[in-house]
Amino acid sequence: MNNCLSLSLADTCSFLKEHDNYIILAHISPDGDTLGSAFALSRALVYLGKNAWVLCPDKIPIKFGYFATQCGIKPTKNATVISVDVADLQLLGKYEDVYADKIELAIDHHISNKRFAKRLYLDTSAAAACECIYEIIMALGVQIDKTMAEALFTGIVTDTGCFKYSNTTPKTHIIASKLMEYGIDAAVINKLMFDTKSRARMEIERLALDSAQFYFNDKCCVIYVTCDMQQKSGCNDDDLEGLSVLSNCVEGVLIGVTMIEIKKNTFKISLRAYSPYNASEICGSLGGGGHISAAGCQIMGDLNSAKQQILDCVKQHMEEVNAGSYSCM
Amino acid sequence: MNNCLSLSLADTCSFLKEHDNYIILAHISPDGDTLGSAFALSRALVYLGKNAWVLCPDKIPIKFGYFATQCGIKPTKNATVISVDVADLQLLGKYEDVYADKIELAIDHHISNKRFAKRLYLDTSAAAACECIYEIIMALGVQIDKTMAEALFTGIVTDTGCFKYSNTTPKTHIIASKLMEYGIDAAVINKLMFDTKSRARMEIERLALDSAQFYFNDKCCVIYVTCDMQQKSGCNDDDLEGLSVLSNCVEGVLIGVTMIEIKKNTFKISLRAYSPYNASEICGSLGGGGHISAAGCQIMGDLNSAKQQILDCVKQHMEEVNAGSYSCM
Repeated sequence: MNNCLSLSLADTCSFLKEHDNYIILAHISPDGDTLGSAFALSRALVYLGKNAWVLCPDKIPIKFGYFATQCGIKPTKNATVISVDVADLQLLGKYEDVYADKIELAIDHHISNKRFAKRLYLDTSAAAACECIYEIIMALGVQIDKTMAEALFTGIVTDTGCFKYSNTTPKTHIIASKLMEYGIDAAVINKLMFDTKSRARMEIERLALDSAQFYFNDKCCVIYVTCDMQQKSGCNDDDLEGLSVLSNCVEGVLIGVTMIEIKKNTFKISLRAYSPYNASEICGSLGGGGHISAAGCQIMGDLNSAKQQILDCVKQHMEEVNAGSYSCM
Repeated sequence: MNNCLSLSLADTCSFLKEHDNYIILAHISPDGDTLGSAFALSRALVYLGKNAWVLCPDKIPIKFGYFATQCGIKPTKNATVISVDVADLQLLGKYEDVYADKIELAIDHHISNKRFAKRLYLDTSAAAACECIYEIIMALGVQIDKTMAEALFTGIVTDTGCFKYSNTTPKTHIIASKLMEYGIDAAVINKLMFDTKSRARMEIERLALDSAQFYFNDKCCVIYVTCDMQQKSGCNDDDLEGLSVLSNCVEGVLIGVTMIEIKKNTFKISLRAYSPYNASEICGSLGGGGHISAAGCQIMGDLNSAKQQILDCVKQHMEEVNAGSYSCM
């Protein structure tokens, strides 16, 4: 929408002070950042004497229980609706229809934000929406409590892979440093977010590693997870998240392919590529897309046929790149 | 030794300015912290017009090549010897005999430092020796260059598990933030240190996961790596480092046991325990020791007998703890 007003930090704070009843919307498949943002902001608004209530379209994973608890009063009518970490209306899931044209303020850090709200506070330099919320809370003059610090720290570590990814900035570390001063147990949060997995996740990792095969002078690694394997391990969708790291963390591998059978004979492909290869071009040739270093597509067919299709495209791309021609489209 | 003089930061800088020829000693099995400390300090001393040369008792792993390069002039005689990140003379390996009584200054962060040097700059609140070296370089007034920043950043991330462990302090994040300002590619360093593994490592992880078994209502997980498995995977000692996380990252597991066969029928046991259990007590009953949450011991015997021995001790400890008695000695 064109009539989305971009707000400064000061304008955002003025807006938040002006109203008294808030609904804060998180996105579907809620992660640490949308939940950390929503619950920290909600607590800050309650400290300002407002009513604030978090709505999340999907079930909140139990592991976020240490901060993701309602603390406010549910607004009954005429609530002011805010979305946090939501780049697109579709990410509101079951709340899309109810709230699509009622969002007064979106707070976000995604460059892809679709400007669906009436007002937008957008900081694309922030590694996490929780960085934006931290700055808003500080600017509001609200004293951060331990639960808010835990919420914000969780959002920052989950969106940065514990400060590992390239979105981490010097400012991210400064904010982390300040949040640690509020008495949070950062190591316990990190262990819970990064070094705790379900039995099913352990099992599916084991099966995925068993499936690993190397091609093209070991420059390409393919792992797969079929429906049968998912059933055998008892894993759910959450357990499959981030599996692709298994295919692209091996020394010398420049193209890592992860094939997840999302329904019988339909594979979701996640592909990671390192220079000089281009993930987006490989997946583009199969109707998908993405970025140079990470892209995806879907392939129909049984395991062997799907694998052959992606391997053919990888091979063609590698040959073209090696020959000095960059397109496999 | 009792006549080891504790130096302040200012005294340490004065000492470093007074001399002109330095040998800097790193520890055996060199890690990111000892190497980052040694090469960053060496560069700083060269900027001050000194000669400085790093000596490492073991081969420097290739992956540290982006910063671990000599930049100074080798002192020929009467060099002033400094050790960095070395807690005990034994950790000097082949240099122990040569330099044991010649170390003029030790710079360290280990509370267990044996005070073997004539002078000691010790900051036990530092997550990494590289934090100490950062402060020394700043106090010396030397301008940090990109290679020094890469060296120091590497030491900090490797000693903190990329800011994940409980030794990470607010100050650690502040220093990381400052180091990022020198144009380093932090994400590339992190990927190299944490998300890059050898084929052999991938293979040994796969085999170790295959070995996982759960006991005592799934509260105890045991994984093992026999000599045969090591041979089959082609892994070396480096590839075995940190494998124990596989046994203690599963939800509900309170005692994680990792058995590594270091020579035929001799198993090195790494044991992690969570409250209310005590790793040190379990390993103590087998002649080993350590901390409440992490301890180790050695067991002789073939795989089944060794496993039975550790499982018997785990069982006894769990029963005693569950009955309200805390000693299994």
